[in-house]
Amino acid sequence: MPKQKLLQLLQEITEDRIPFNKLIGMKIDNLDLENIKIRFEMRPELVGNFMRGNLHGGVISTVLDVTGGMLAWTGIMKKMEGSTFEEITERFAKIGTIDLRVDYLRPGLGKYFIATGSTLRAGNKLSVIRMELHNDEGILIAVGTGSYVVG
Amino acid sequence: MPKQKLLQLLQEITEDRIPFNKLIGMKIDNLDLENIKIRFEMRPELVGNFMRGNLHGGVISTVLDVTGGMLAWTGIMKKMEGSTFEEITERFAKIGTIDLRVDYLRPGLGKYFIATGSTLRAGNKLSVIRMELHNDEGILIAVGTGSYVVG
Amino acid sequence: MPKQKLLQLLQEITEDRIPFNKLIGMKIDNLDLENIKIRFEMRPELVGNFMRGNLHGGVISTVLDVTGGMLAWTGIMKKMEGSTFEEITERFAKIGTIDLRVDYLRPGLGKYFIATGSTLRAGNKLSVIRMELHNDEGILIAVGTGSYVVG
Amino acid sequence: MPKQKLLQLLQEITEDRIPFNKLIGMKIDNLDLENIKIRFEMRPELVGNFMRGNLHGGVISTVLDVTGGMLAWTGIMKKMEGSTFEEITERFAKIGTIDLRVDYLRPGLGKYFIATGSTLRAGNKLSVIRMELHNDEGILIAVGTGSYVVG
Repeated sequence: MPKQKLLQLLQEITEDRIPFNKLIGMKIDNLDLENIKIRFEMRPELVGNFMRGNLHGGVISTVLDVTGGMLAWTGIMKKMEGSTFEEITERFAKIGTIDLRVDYLRPGLGKYFIATGSTLRAGNKLSVIRMELHNDEGILIAVGTGSYVVG
Repeated sequence: MPKQKLLQLLQEITEDRIPFNKLIGMKIDNLDLENIKIRFEMRPELVGNFMRGNLHGGVISTVLDVTGGMLAWTGIMKKMEGSTFEEITERFAKIGTIDLRVDYLRPGLGKYFIATGSTLRAGNKLSVIRMELHNDEGILIAVGTGSYVVG
Repeated sequence: MPKQKLLQLLQEITEDRIPFNKLIGMKIDNLDLENIKIRFEMRPELVGNFMRGNLHGGVISTVLDVTGGMLAWTGIMKKMEGSTFEEITERFAKIGTIDLRVDYLRPGLGKYFIATGSTLRAGNKLSVIRMELHNDEGILIAVGTGSYVVG
Repeated sequence: MPKQKLLQLLQEITEDRIPFNKLIGMKIDNLDLENIKIRFEMRPELVGNFMRGNLHGGVISTVLDVTGGMLAWTGIMKKMEGSTFEEITERFAKIGTIDLRVDYLRPGLGKYFIATGSTLRAGNKLSVIRMELHNDEGILIAVGTGSYVVG
C-alpha cells in the first residue's frame, strides 16, 4: 500500500471517525512521516472560563495528545516501509498513550490554534513525543510531553 | 454567603455553564470542602478508538483536570471562611491549572465512570491535587496529578 | 531459586552496589513482593538549600525513582514464579525508567525520611508506580509517579 | 550590584556550596540571563546500572532540576534590574521547584554530559523551563520540564 494512501487514511480517521476530535473540529493541515500540524478554530463550545473566554484545558490536552499519538503512528510507518496494509493496521491497534504531561503556559485566547510536535525517541516498543500549541499570533499557549506504547 | 450556596453555584457552573463539560456530560455526585465525585456516562461521542470502543484519552484528561480544579477551589473556600461572596469569586478568577500529568492505566471501558481526587497540598499560592478515574466496576482506569495556581 | 534469596540480592545491589544510592545512604527497611520501604538519614551532604537546610530536590527524585524501580522489579518477580535465576536476571536487565514526575510538596526537613510506593499497573511490558516520601514526623514531603519498561 | 557579579555568585553557590551538586561534579560552562550550560564528567560514582555502566537516573533528574532552577533565577534577575543585592537575594530565597517531569530517552553513556535549558514562561509567580541533557557525542539522553515558584 502506498505510504501516501495510508497517511490519507490516518487523516480521515482522525478528523472524521473520532467523535471527540470532531467536536473540537481538528483539521490536519499537514501530515507526513516527520511532521504534523493540526489546526482548530476557536468556537464557543471550546471555552473553559466563560468570564475570560479562553480555551478549556481539556481541549488543549486532547489536541496535544492526538498530535503526539499521530507522530507515534507515523514513526511506526517509517519503520514498516514495505509491510502490507494488514501488518501496519495490526500494529496501529497496539498504539496507545502511556502518560502525558501538559504545561498550560498562557491563556488559550485566539482565532485559531495550531498544534505541532517533534519526536524525541522512536523505539520499537516506545515513542516519546514533545508537542506545542500556538495561537494565530504565534504565541505559545501550551506544551506537552507524551509517552506512547507502539509495539 | 453560606458555604452551601457557594458549593451549589460551583456545581451549576461546572455542569451547565462550561460547554466542554456539558459535551462530556459531567455530573457532580458529591461535593463538599474535602471531597468531590464527578460521574459521567459512556456515550458514543466519547469514544476514542472506534475499534475498541474505549474512552478518548482527551475525555479522561479533561475530567481529571476539572476534578483537580474543583478541589483547588474548595481548598480556597476553606481558607476563606467568613469572606464575602465578592472576595471569594475574585479569588476564584485567579485559579488555573499550571500543569497536569495523566497516566492511562487501562482501556476506558465501562457503563459510567467516576472521578475523585485528594488534596496533597493546599497552599496560599499553589495547590497540588491527585486524581483517579474508576469505571462502574471499580476498575482504576487512569490517575493524574495537577498543580494549580490559587492566589 | 527461592524468592527470599532473590529479594535479598536485590536489596544488596540497591544498597551496596550502586554508588549513587550509597552516597544518599538508602537502607531498605522492608521489601516483599507487594511493598517497599526505603529509609535514609538526613546528612549535610544531602542539603540543597544551605540557608534552609532542606533536602536537595535531586535526592528526593533519586529516592522516589529507586523506590518505583524496585516495585517494578518485584512486580516482575511475582509474574515469574517458577522461573530460573538466569531467566529472572535476564528480565531484570530490561527494566528501566521511562519517565518520572515528582511533586515537591513541602521542604525536605527531618531527621530521617521514608519512601514507599504502590503499584498502579503491573503489565507485561509496562509498570506504573506511585511513590511517596514522608519525614520522621509522618509529614508528606513529596510524591511521584513513574512509568517503567519491564519487558 | 553589577549583574555580572551576581551571576558569578550564583555559579559559586551552585558549584561549591551545594554538596549534592559537588558530588556530581557540576561545572557551569556558560551562564548569562538567557542561557545556561552545565557540564559534568562521567565517573564511577555516577553509575546506576553497573552491568551497563550508564548514569543513574537520579543524577540525570538532579542535573535537569538544577538547570531549570538556575534559569528560573536568571529570569528573576532580568525582571529585577536596578534592584539591590538584598532585594534580589530575598527574592531568590523564595524560588523552588514545584514539580518536575523527566523523560529518560537513551542510556546515559558518554565521557561527559551537557545540560541546557530554555524558558517557556517567566512570570511573576511562576516559571516553566524545559531542559535537555546531551552526551559528548551530541546524543540526546534525557529531557525534562519543570515548574518553579519564583515569587
